[in-house]
Amino acid sequence: MRGVLAATLEVLAEVGYEALRIEDVAARAGVNKTTVYRRWPTKQELVRAAFRSITVDRAITPNTGSLRGDLLVIARHMAAQASSPELQGLRRLLFAEDRDAELVAIAQSIHESMEALPRPVIEAAEARGELAPGIDATLIFRCMAATIHHRLGMERRPIDEGFLTQLVELLLTGGLAQDKRT
Amino acid sequence: MRGVLAATLEVLAEVGYEALRIEDVAARAGVNKTTVYRRWPTKQELVRAAFRSITVDRAITPNTGSLRGDLLVIARHMAAQASSPELQGLRRLLFAEDRDAELVAIAQSIHESMEALPRPVIEAAEARGELAPGIDATLIFRCMAATIHHRLGMERRPIDEGFLTQLVELLLTGGLAQDKRT
Repeated sequence: MRGVLAATLEVLAEVGYEALRIEDVAARAGVNKTTVYRRWPTKQELVRAAFRSITVDRAITPNTGSLRGDLLVIARHMAAQASSPELQGLRRLLFAEDRDAELVAIAQSIHESMEALPRPVIEAAEARGELAPGIDATLIFRCMAATIHHRLGMERRPIDEGFLTQLVELLLTGGLAQDKRT
Repeated sequence: MRGVLAATLEVLAEVGYEALRIEDVAARAGVNKTTVYRRWPTKQELVRAAFRSITVDRAITPNTGSLRGDLLVIARHMAAQASSPELQGLRRLLFAEDRDAELVAIAQSIHESMEALPRPVIEAAEARGELAPGIDATLIFRCMAATIHHRLGMERRPIDEGFLTQLVELLLTGGLAQDKRT
């Protein structure tokens, strides 16, 4: 069924969410429309599955033995993913139709799934005693994702290994001098 | 001339960058088109000025006496600004026409100006010895802006004081436990 989801992303990029019709997706994928309806009964479910296929389903869960190592692997993966044409198309769509309630609900549900992804990495870091007390560790990952997406999507600047290392270091150790911490 | 820039943002929101004509902006603002051309000879200059009027020109430079205090004031201001309809419209436009080279160049130049803004805050923090050695302090501000914009624009979640405090704390002191820092 990868063909149907890829076709969904193509049609979305061309006509947007509101105008997307399951018939057109089926035609593009070369399958019968009942085949699509059987698996994804509504447009919303179809589009959510298509979004998941290029976000949640592509996520990785590294296990390098340290939080720093895991963050760097995830940061590199995020940067590579975020510059893919599919992700650029997704960003474009979400902003172009940012007042469509159904599309907003899909985006929110994808973000909730994304947020659960680093849990094994966070648990491993906790088990190693690596996390500062009282920290919301998911914020580290959200901050990292936001900064990478913002740099590519808004600032329009390339991302290199030096940038990713600096970013991970800031999130791990902070910008404040040691003797100014209370 | 505020009226002309406000009219520019309105017309942009309606027709986008490519289709915007200075004549239409002048008509909307109720001024002669030569009045507009005299001050902003090209569409690119007019649109850049309109973007600046709701970004760079609205920025604040706090001086609370501590980096933590300054960051919190800026974070609150960013969050309030980022949820304004004008900024939402700007985000929508930048993503909708993200392959227009002229518009991308405008966005990049605005981001460069934005990046210079925290310089007084950074210099004050340096003078107080508050910055960790080797840190690129502008990254703290870029990370903060990205996370706030991402939360509002992509995750579609509200921002409260608790979130801003957590974010500032993470950027200042990092997520790694003290005894794991080498």
